[in-house]
Amino acid sequence: MDYFALPVQKLIEEFEKLPGIGRKTAQRLAFHVLNLSEDRVIGFAKALVDAKRKIKDCSICHNLTDTDPCRICGSEKRDHTVICVVQNSRDVVAMERVREYKGLYHVLNGLISPLDGTGPDDINIKSLISRVANGKVLEVILATSPTVEGEATAVYLSKILKPLGVKTTRIAQGISVGGDLEYADEVTLYKSLEGRREI
Amino acid sequence: MDYFALPVQKLIEEFEKLPGIGRKTAQRLAFHVLNLSEDRVIGFAKALVDAKRKIKDCSICHNLTDTDPCRICGSEKRDHTVICVVQNSRDVVAMERVREYKGLYHVLNGLISPLDGTGPDDINIKSLISRVANGKVLEVILATSPTVEGEATAVYLSKILKPLGVKTTRIAQGISVGGDLEYADEVTLYKSLEGRREI
Repeated sequence: MDYFALPVQKLIEEFEKLPGIGRKTAQRLAFHVLNLSEDRVIGFAKALVDAKRKIKDCSICHNLTDTDPCRICGSEKRDHTVICVVQNSRDVVAMERVREYKGLYHVLNGLISPLDGTGPDDINIKSLISRVANGKVLEVILATSPTVEGEATAVYLSKILKPLGVKTTRIAQGISVGGDLEYADEVTLYKSLEGRREI
Repeated sequence: MDYFALPVQKLIEEFEKLPGIGRKTAQRLAFHVLNLSEDRVIGFAKALVDAKRKIKDCSICHNLTDTDPCRICGSEKRDHTVICVVQNSRDVVAMERVREYKGLYHVLNGLISPLDGTGPDDINIKSLISRVANGKVLEVILATSPTVEGEATAVYLSKILKPLGVKTTRIAQGISVGGDLEYADEVTLYKSLEGRREI
């Protein structure tokens, strides 16, 4: 550990703490930073601290935002009668990219996963129930990923939400566009058959 | 590009500028940073700026250092009659890890590469010649990588250094330890045969 000058060593260690970045990559990134102009490095450092300081959870939908309520919850152009429930903020971005959905979101910040010790009280379910209970919401779209945890969370939510008189829907599962029937797994194929529609 | 709040967007762009980091990884890293404590993010930012501000080229060997001359050039325990010429500071670290070499280094900060427009004057060759010319140096080990550019640089340096009356050596090339003869390429096998020694 004596090989690098201390400030370089520290920087390598910081990069190494990031997910998916090993020792070699951390070294490469640190040396890349040393080759940048001081202005650019300060810009990078500022972006880090700025993002951390300015970004908060939206008090309504828990999406990451620099305004409260977030731009989606605060927009009058959005349909406030539909809520799309997703696992995290990145999923909101994925949905927004479709440019088709005009309703609101609710970010759970996790999924129910007994194996990881995450129960219904550990994710943003209570705030979803109170949003639905206020009566203006007509439909809740359950858009958690079709994994074991995502599926379990969707089933749990639908059981809780239906008694409130709201329509709950689940995003369709099937073969992805451009995908090949031959290489699809059995469960996906079954889901795509089960979910067939008249054309 | 409207999907992320501006400070998040900026942070993603900063990560994306790093080598080998694409859009998806940049997003993952940015969201990871948002989940860290503010102290840790500030620590990361400080490590970036610190490394950039405190680390300079050693005025003798051009290795990255926070002291001038660097710890190696300034050490009396090192053998000041041997200079190992390497491409960059990471190679110094690789050599130091062996714990066997006790001489000094000279960091070229590049290799001669006509295709990339890098000539002998663009890398630290002049300062190497003046170090050798002062007379105390007995051996120069050419430890550039055995690539086309590394080889060309080594040949160029040996031609320039030999007239100065210094012994110039090249690191051995052959099959790496633990490597398999069966999978070695022809050039490596040839080099390992050519460089054979009596045992």
